[in-house]
Amino acid sequence: MQLNKTLPIAAALIALPVLGFAQEAEEAVEAVAPGFDEIGPYIMTTLLFMMGGFLVFFMAAGFAMLEGGLVRSKNVAMQMTKNIALYSFAAIMYWLIGFNLMYPGDGWIMAGWVGPFFSTTVLDPVGVDAADAALDYASIGSDFFFQLVFVAATASIVSGALAERIKLWPFLFFVIILTGVMYPISGSWQWGGGWLSEMGFSDFAGSTVVHSVGGWAALAGAIVLGPRIGKYTSSGQVHPMPGSNLALATLGTFILWLGWFGFNGGSQLAMGTVGDVSDVSRIFANTNMAAAAGAVAALILTQVMYKKVDLTMVLNGALAGLVSITAEPLAPTLFGSLWIGAVGGIIVVFAVPMLDKLKIDDVVGAIPVHLCAGIWGTIAVIFYGEASLGTQLTGIIAYGVFTFVVSLVVWFILKAIVGIRVSEEDEINGLDMAELGMEAYPEFSKG
Amino acid sequence: MQLNKTLPIAAALIALPVLGFAQEAEEAVEAVAPGFDEIGPYIMTTLLFMMGGFLVFFMAAGFAMLEGGLVRSKNVAMQMTKNIALYSFAAIMYWLIGFNLMYPGDGWIMAGWVGPFFSTTVLDPVGVDAADAALDYASIGSDFFFQLVFVAATASIVSGALAERIKLWPFLFFVIILTGVMYPISGSWQWGGGWLSEMGFSDFAGSTVVHSVGGWAALAGAIVLGPRIGKYTSSGQVHPMPGSNLALATLGTFILWLGWFGFNGGSQLAMGTVGDVSDVSRIFANTNMAAAAGAVAALILTQVMYKKVDLTMVLNGALAGLVSITAEPLAPTLFGSLWIGAVGGIIVVFAVPMLDKLKIDDVVGAIPVHLCAGIWGTIAVIFYGEASLGTQLTGIIAYGVFTFVVSLVVWFILKAIVGIRVSEEDEINGLDMAELGMEAYPEFSKG
Amino acid sequence: MQLNKTLPIAAALIALPVLGFAQEAEEAVEAVAPGFDEIGPYIMTTLLFMMGGFLVFFMAAGFAMLEGGLVRSKNVAMQMTKNIALYSFAAIMYWLIGFNLMYPGDGWIMAGWVGPFFSTTVLDPVGVDAADAALDYASIGSDFFFQLVFVAATASIVSGALAERIKLWPFLFFVIILTGVMYPISGSWQWGGGWLSEMGFSDFAGSTVVHSVGGWAALAGAIVLGPRIGKYTSSGQVHPMPGSNLALATLGTFILWLGWFGFNGGSQLAMGTVGDVSDVSRIFANTNMAAAAGAVAALILTQVMYKKVDLTMVLNGALAGLVSITAEPLAPTLFGSLWIGAVGGIIVVFAVPMLDKLKIDDVVGAIPVHLCAGIWGTIAVIFYGEASLGTQLTGIIAYGVFTFVVSLVVWFILKAIVGIRVSEEDEINGLDMAELGMEAYPEFSKG
Repeated sequence: MQLNKTLPIAAALIALPVLGFAQEAEEAVEAVAPGFDEIGPYIMTTLLFMMGGFLVFFMAAGFAMLEGGLVRSKNVAMQMTKNIALYSFAAIMYWLIGFNLMYPGDGWIMAGWVGPFFSTTVLDPVGVDAADAALDYASIGSDFFFQLVFVAATASIVSGALAERIKLWPFLFFVIILTGVMYPISGSWQWGGGWLSEMGFSDFAGSTVVHSVGGWAALAGAIVLGPRIGKYTSSGQVHPMPGSNLALATLGTFILWLGWFGFNGGSQLAMGTVGDVSDVSRIFANTNMAAAAGAVAALILTQVMYKKVDLTMVLNGALAGLVSITAEPLAPTLFGSLWIGAVGGIIVVFAVPMLDKLKIDDVVGAIPVHLCAGIWGTIAVIFYGEASLGTQLTGIIAYGVFTFVVSLVVWFILKAIVGIRVSEEDEINGLDMAELGMEAYPEFSKG
Repeated sequence: MQLNKTLPIAAALIALPVLGFAQEAEEAVEAVAPGFDEIGPYIMTTLLFMMGGFLVFFMAAGFAMLEGGLVRSKNVAMQMTKNIALYSFAAIMYWLIGFNLMYPGDGWIMAGWVGPFFSTTVLDPVGVDAADAALDYASIGSDFFFQLVFVAATASIVSGALAERIKLWPFLFFVIILTGVMYPISGSWQWGGGWLSEMGFSDFAGSTVVHSVGGWAALAGAIVLGPRIGKYTSSGQVHPMPGSNLALATLGTFILWLGWFGFNGGSQLAMGTVGDVSDVSRIFANTNMAAAAGAVAALILTQVMYKKVDLTMVLNGALAGLVSITAEPLAPTLFGSLWIGAVGGIIVVFAVPMLDKLKIDDVVGAIPVHLCAGIWGTIAVIFYGEASLGTQLTGIIAYGVFTFVVSLVVWFILKAIVGIRVSEEDEINGLDMAELGMEAYPEFSKG
Repeated sequence: MQLNKTLPIAAALIALPVLGFAQEAEEAVEAVAPGFDEIGPYIMTTLLFMMGGFLVFFMAAGFAMLEGGLVRSKNVAMQMTKNIALYSFAAIMYWLIGFNLMYPGDGWIMAGWVGPFFSTTVLDPVGVDAADAALDYASIGSDFFFQLVFVAATASIVSGALAERIKLWPFLFFVIILTGVMYPISGSWQWGGGWLSEMGFSDFAGSTVVHSVGGWAALAGAIVLGPRIGKYTSSGQVHPMPGSNLALATLGTFILWLGWFGFNGGSQLAMGTVGDVSDVSRIFANTNMAAAAGAVAALILTQVMYKKVDLTMVLNGALAGLVSITAEPLAPTLFGSLWIGAVGGIIVVFAVPMLDKLKIDDVVGAIPVHLCAGIWGTIAVIFYGEASLGTQLTGIIAYGVFTFVVSLVVWFILKAIVGIRVSEEDEINGLDMAELGMEAYPEFSKG
């Protein structure tokens, strides 16, 4: 503290009876003892984005382990390659185009456009002054990082559904389009202050904006790509192709569950007041409850329906519970989160065989989990939030039509130009040897 | 800042010479520049519970990986199922009954009792006002979540000890009783302000309240259940049954170690003052030291005793070091943490063969780690804390008698009514195929 | 708030016109409403060290999984043993000697020297008062823990390069020297306020101080130890020895990437002001970008050069991107981070075969990633930071000469006295059975 801070206080306090000096008096007091309410919220919200960000980043590992555990061993190395590559391309594309496309109206982005289709995100300067920072929000770096890890989650959903048969590079090209253009455009409708947000559509952390978008893109891809060889016999039988490593798939599920605290909690977008930090914790408790309920629902339901518990359904049940609560993780009570999550788990148990009936081959159950439960979660908002069913359905349909149609077009173009599917021989031998020339588990002999 | 905040300041400051207005003057100054000491502690402690909470949540993955790595491959999928299911049931039961049972006297819980045995936890309202929040503590959501992940840890301990032979549903029924009723009742003796806490029993983060309780419940189960087929020959030989994946077990140990920073650090229950945050960091350093010392002690001891280092002992040594420091992670010096943790590691190396002599089959070493080291850690408090040996032993015995006896009763009832052990044929074939109809590693042929 | 806090305010404010009382007036206002700027930075920076610390701690698991996935299955249990043991020994040695050796000049360390070579780190007392705490920095416990996990990272680098042939105990003895003496001495040159720091050498989070030091120690070891049997044929052929579990290696890479947010972000060493927390988030965004760019660069380059993507190169490319940005993760723009990281990824793709030409057998690519990219990252500082090329090269060479020469000496002494390499028979049979008497995957038959 400097003496020159104290002098204006003295002056101001003496001058207090004169109302015209009231503002100065207030500022003078704050100069000596700046309150937590001035810079505290900025610091705490920036921290929230960083914590939420690294948790959601780790979901990339969760998706990789889940998918790597659910594919057959001959495709594991490729699944690893796709997952680390999709995250990396998403990070670059979201910087290059996506972030500014999604949040065009935010003055603090300071977008530096270079030509019509190209922009770069500019972070706050090093050691930014309080006067130049977005004190009512958070640092650009933290916000950018937090949004970036979300877009990567969307792309991860696609990689699971299309596993074991799609070529590496066409898949990555789709990821580039999805993360650089498609997701940012549709995302801006809601989170960039666009028409759906103005209409009152409610999607707190992205049951629709993130998860069903990933699900729609995956669905389009699965249709264009077709099922794996031997998955569906001509007589209509479904041939199960068990995952090669359920310990890994379970680890992936736990990592995703962990990351979801950041996904939903960080979406509060503020942590610097009593109300905000309490809300973040409310979201933690609700998110956890929905996941638990989804897992238990799938556990009981598979026991009842099939007389045996199905571990992969339990894992997907937990994830479906998480997706279901993502559209509104704040408003529900713990009981509300329980039943919303449980319905998500039930949906998965029914949606997986239904997709098989339609001969849509979704290797890891990404479409039931992220699309079906994502739609359910977005509808469930009406029970605890303020959105109307009509608005919610409008949003669901808008995201569905846009993402599904554009994805179909991109997949068809890719199919026509370069082909998206490996040769029959390569598929049977496994993508690992065919496309990478290496195996994930070279020493373990196959049964 | 509004002008109407400044007016009372002006008035109050002018009135200062009149002592009767002193209180108003103080409040007026705070209205302009609310100090960090008003809402900062609430925000920081809530954050501590959320961070600690997600770290301890991740321990569920740690237990799953540790146990999945230490069972034989034919039981891995079942071990995964049990671990994700037990966490999920614990989350629901602790909400339904446990939390209010354990913390009955806290006015801010606002328990809504529905009949004599049933209550639901009510979180803070959305966007709670500072005036309605527990400013001297933390948000209900964060506290509930933090306590919930602790109870799940207790249940995870049981699942490891009883692996490879217990039926899924009776196990889950026991988890429901343990997490909904047993743990909350005994937990309330100490952490709910009950008789042990009044007597001066000291157990900072739960060497006894969490770990030995899990250990006692596991011991009762292991006795009622009996050893795995072939583990102990009639001639008194112990037949080793090596874990199927030591990389996974090591990962699990590292995850548990990570989670323990939240487990012990979060148990400071406050992070909003210089003293509290410094204490949390002291706990981090001590917790880490105890784990390292436990690992090194087991490493050196197995080298000396068996001429070969035993990796599973090293892993359990680290965990025993962690359990040992859990009863008092704050008061010891770093050297104190070192020797307390080292003794924990040594205990494990001797306790594992001792259990085998008693023909108590603990698949993963949960009883040596959580019960034996838990008792040791609770006694070790007397060297650095203020508790007396008599009080500590009273607590240890009280938790032991209660948990062991009630567990025995529950296990015997379950055994009598539905049976708790799979058939001999199912055990030999592995629980995965018998109870789930799937394998964790279906493609890797077994040697 | 007590009345006796208000009285001095009243007195002081009245006395304000008298300038001599200005200081008291200021203190009086702060007594009522202490500003965030007094204790907030201490709390936030301590929190930063704890968060950064647990993230970097988890890198120990990342290294273990990466290395465990890249060695052959017959050496996995040993690799796990080495990794958990090296972390544990590092934790003890850094407390026993290292920390005080590295930061000798910091008054707040309160080193208690016991004899000339022995000291113990003394943490802040329990519940330290604000008056006794380093309010301009952070708690000793948090700083100690954060520095400790860094030294463990250095040792982890060595374990990967020397895998599959080095004996356990000589390796651990080297770790003791490295973490207790070598790293702290050279580290003090820069981070302890030593001659390189005075000269203007710039290494924000340790591209040189941590990573190249680990790389130099590994290089010396690899030379003294010699390549694995059969790795290089007499005719100059390189015999590939594929890693046994690429899913595990990928998991390890993701965990390391996660931990790096703590590694680089925590190295800001402050989080309690607008500028500092914004800088930490800038570091998060830059660190992520460099990793993504390193992965993409290796992906594209291996496709172009070998017509097939190489997953292990992509993993190491991401890690090389991370190492490259570690010397200056704050100053670069996102584009700067991209190209710096991409060059790191490219370096790895070229350095791996170059090492093989020199018949230096680095099992996991630790030397290309940590040494080569570490040098590159330290040089790249000149493009965005204020350091000159000459100074940076001086630092690089100083660390290289010191670490390489001392390591060589230690390795040669160990080789002469106890031998550092297992017998030919043991190496062929695998270290797991030979040195531990157990297998990591005992049930999976080997192809």
